This record gives sequence, C-alpha cells and structure tokens, in this order.
Amino acid sequence: MNILCSERGARELADAGLLARWPGRVDLVGIGQADQADVVFLTRDIVWPSTDDWLAPATAAFYDAMLAAPRLRWVHTYASGADRRIYHDLRARGVQVTNSAGANAGAVAQTALAGFLYFARRLHVARRQQLEKRWQPMAHDEVRALRSTEAMVVGWGEIGSRIGQYLSTLGMPLRVLRQSAEPVAGVVATGGYERFHEWVGQVDWVFFACPLSPATRGLFNMGTLEALRAERPLGVVNVARGPLIDTQALLAAHERGLVRHAHLDVFDTEPLPPDHPLWDCEDFLVTPHMAGTSDGNREEVVDRFLGLLARFLEAGGN
Amino acid sequence: MNILCSERGARELADAGLLARWPGRVDLVGIGQADQADVVFLTRDIVWPSTDDWLAPATAAFYDAMLAAPRLRWVHTYASGADRRIYHDLRARGVQVTNSAGANAGAVAQTALAGFLYFARRLHVARRQQLEKRWQPMAHDEVRALRSTEAMVVGWGEIGSRIGQYLSTLGMPLRVLRQSAEPVAGVVATGGYERFHEWVGQVDWVFFACPLSPATRGLFNMGTLEALRAERPLGVVNVARGPLIDTQALLAAHERGLVRHAHLDVFDTEPLPPDHPLWDCEDFLVTPHMAGTSDGNREEVVDRFLGLLARFLEAGGN
Repeated sequence: MNILCSERGARELADAGLLARWPGRVDLVGIGQADQADVVFLTRDIVWPSTDDWLAPATAAFYDAMLAAPRLRWVHTYASGADRRIYHDLRARGVQVTNSAGANAGAVAQTALAGFLYFARRLHVARRQQLEKRWQPMAHDEVRALRSTEAMVVGWGEIGSRIGQYLSTLGMPLRVLRQSAEPVAGVVATGGYERFHEWVGQVDWVFFACPLSPATRGLFNMGTLEALRAERPLGVVNVARGPLIDTQALLAAHERGLVRHAHLDVFDTEPLPPDHPLWDCEDFLVTPHMAGTSDGNREEVVDRFLGLLARFLEAGGN
Repeated sequence: MNILCSERGARELADAGLLARWPGRVDLVGIGQADQADVVFLTRDIVWPSTDDWLAPATAAFYDAMLAAPRLRWVHTYASGADRRIYHDLRARGVQVTNSAGANAGAVAQTALAGFLYFARRLHVARRQQLEKRWQPMAHDEVRALRSTEAMVVGWGEIGSRIGQYLSTLGMPLRVLRQSAEPVAGVVATGGYERFHEWVGQVDWVFFACPLSPATRGLFNMGTLEALRAERPLGVVNVARGPLIDTQALLAAHERGLVRHAHLDVFDTEPLPPDHPLWDCEDFLVTPHMAGTSDGNREEVVDRFLGLLARFLEAGGN
C-alpha cells in the first residue's frame, strides 16, 4: 500500500513511526511514482501558496499527478476544511477526501482561556503597573471569584467543548448555545443560538467558538445593548470569526459600560486596519488571528492521519 | 467570650449568623475594648496594604492592641500562612495562631495559570503589538504546543494540586515535588524537594506552590544555573513565597538565556523597591502579591473561623 506525499510529509510520517508500525505493509512514494499511489497525505507545503484561482507550478504538478493516479482511493488533507476545487474534482473521481478539522482546537481553546484569565485575574492592570514600577495591590472586591463568574459558550464543537471543559475545571458555572440545542451534561443550561439575547444579560462572560453561518452572523449586534446591564458588565472572547460580532455595537456597549473587557483574535477585516478604534481600547485585548498558532499542529495532523490510516488498513485497505 | 475584630469583620460574622448561633455566649468587640478580647478574628482590611517591612498606621494600632490584650488566647487570620512577624510575636506570648490555609487556593492557582498562559500563548507579545497598532501574526514554530510542554509543580498542597489539575486538563505532562515524595497519580514522576536540581533541566516550566521552610528556601539558586540548558529555557511561576527563589540567580539565569519567562507574585522584600531590576524585565511579569485576591475569599475565611470557633467553645473556651 503506497502513500504519496511530499518530502516533508514523508519525514513527518517517518518521524511518527509509520514505517515501524506497519512494516512491509506501507510504503511512502514521491510524485515520480504517483501512478502507484493508493493514498495521498497532503501537507501544507504542497498547497502553499496556491489559491483556488492561481496554482503554483509545484502544486499544479502534484494535483495533476493525484488526478491521474489510477489506484488512488483516499486523500487526507492537513486543512480544516476541504472545500477547494481540487477536492471536488477528486470526489468526482470517486476518491474519498478527509480533512484535519480540529487539529488546532486545543491551541485555540487555550488562547481563549488565556485571554479570559488575563482580564479575570487582572493581569492587564498588574502589567501596566509593572511598566510604571508601581506596587499597588488590588482590593478583594475588585476581583471576582471565578466560582461565581458565569460563562456562556457559543458553539459546542471541538473548540467550544474544550473551552467549556477548561472553565468547568476552574469551577465556573456554564451555559451552552449550540446549533442542535441538545443538552450538554453538567452545565446550567443548553439552548439554540436564538437564545443569545435572552441569556447574554444573565452571564458574566461570552465565548464565541461557533462557525459563521446565517444563524450566527452578527449574533452580538446593536440589539444586544438592550439585553445588557451596567450592574453586570459583560466580558467577551472571540476566537471564531470576526463577523459574529458587530464591532460598532461592541464598542458602543463598552462606551456605555455594558461590556467591560474583550479578547478579540478575529475581525471583519484582517489585518485590522491601522486606524481602527479597536487598537486603542486598552480594556480590549487585540491579537492577530493567532489563537490556533502552535508548533504542535503538524503533529496533530499526522496523528489524525495515522488514526484514519489504521482504520483504513483494518477495513482491508490492502 | 469576646472576639476582637474590625467593623468589617464584625459585619461578616454577624451576616454568617454567629450571634444567633451562640446567643449570650459570644460578643464582638472593637479595638477600643481590645483589653477584654479572648479571641481575634483578623481580616484582610486590618492588614492590607501593610507588609512585614512596612506597617500602615491602622495596622500598627491593631497589632499593638492585640499584643497588649491580657486575656488573648487565640488569633485566627484570614491569611493562608502565618509567617509574618506579628504571628511570631503573638506565639511568643503564648497566643495560639490559626490560619485560613486553602481559603484562597482556587484564586492563587488560577492566577498561576493566568500568568503561565500569558507567556505560553504569547499574549505579552500581542499586547505590545496592540499598543503599537501593529498586526504581526506569529509563526507556528514560535509557539510551543502545551501537550509537549512539561511542567514541574513544587508543593502539592491545596494550591499545588489545583495547579496540577488545571495543567493536566490542558494536556500537559507533569512532575511533582512534595515533602512526602508520596506518588501522585497520573503524573510523569513524583519526588522530594531534593530532586529539584536533578529535574529542573528536564522540564519547561516550574510552578512554586510550596511553603517556605528550611527544605525549600532558596530552592532556585546559583547552582540551578548549572542544571539549566539554553536549548530548553525554563519558565518560572512563583505564587508561594519570595525567598524560595534567589532573585539574583533568577536574573542571572535570564541574562544567560537559561530562563525565558517568569511570573512572580511574591518577593523577598514587599513592596518590591522602585529601583529593583525585576520591574524592568519585560520577559517577567511582576504582580503585587495579588494571586489570592478574590471577592470569594471572605466567605471561605468566615466558614473556616466558625468551624474552629465551634471546637474552641466545645473545648471549654468559655
């Protein structure tokens, strides 16, 4: 059984012990032997920097070789989604395509936790004082106990459910909004996205971790301001997609004291334009779409591929 | 039986139903009647913002009143540890001193987690870029995956074991150093404090969460520099006691690239003097002994005091 991959992909698979795990059963081949490939392990170095509208010569050559490979049955891609044209073409030829959705879920959820704790444990204030060489302890009343800080997690996929797990470990009560509204165990309440405005005034923090869809676009909007109360100002974390939040509404809510802090990793326009008012809001933490950045992503992609490969081989994949 | 406390302490005890629980047996008195006090309930408002090296006038007055109280037999403090000078002086006079160890364990462990994630998820870099209005995403290789980031937790009491639980939930491998060296389940290894130098070069982060004792004082010292390697620079979190670390050794380790980041909440001298070199080290986060600050602590402290008071009264404490 032959796996077609790039030199880098071959190195990653060899480092992960693929050849030792299935000795004599699995071989790694390059583009010159593409006609003997049963499976493709597609890594980022093959695709980058091509887009759907423009293919680099090396990408085009690899795609042509895949499409011409007579024995090819399965392609696994490093990407989270497989909606590019090449995947449609492969599927049209009867090739199964799998993706690496969730490979960066751990990093994204950990970044959401980091941004939340940065404000919840008042590190932003301490850091400013450090830069001013000023020792100024806080009063107990300035720092809310997490066990009485309630959070709402919007989206319950690999990222949202991890955020929920982390917050639960910290002792925080949780509400969950998810597409199915199927109850999540161990939380205060579960509902569909349509309950956002009903619940947003009853929690202390909202974590956005859902896909962008007609149901979630602009979930936080001008109408949200009527649901919020200055006595219980909200914190916001968005590690999903910029357009989930109407930025003007968020800034207006902050100005009226309805939103206290936000950690935003994603924006309507990226890079965030240099004159955007979000840069200046010190109560907000702006990070450059980096929540998923981690040197562990490649390893996760390899792990996912190896898991699927084991099932493929068990199912008689030669 | 008279309990000396601040006005705020009196309100807290009354709110918790103390007077109704022991009607006619227990009275609350203020500093003006300190000479009639049998017991002291010492709350944070009395001590804050004093340190061992500097006493606020109100703190000094209260301490003087306690030390002069002829009938005083027992002092309960809101603090986790009772190693300040005043407690030594009280004990020297035959007064029993109890503390509220564990009341703030959750807040302290959460602050340790916050400081660690601040550096591990590179928020310190992102925040600097935000202040400069600069969008600069990081490369994957610049951010270590947490599941391949190994931590050593020094001390396995209420705080250390919570830190360990949080880090485990993030998927991090752990080593534990504790006084008893009794194995902790689910970790890479457990050892006594004497293994610190053997293991410190084999981990990525060290969390100090142990009491200050002859076995732990100066655990991180000039000798530690020989155990560290620049290829695997260490991160340090100290939410326990300043003298666990020789600050000069830590700064020297940073200068040689052996220590990359540190979150320090406690120091040899508090407040940290304005000319101390730690303030200037932007790779270090300096926080003003605030790890345990939380509006949930008072409730936990009152609960602990009432439990001890019940036993004190049963034991014939009048």
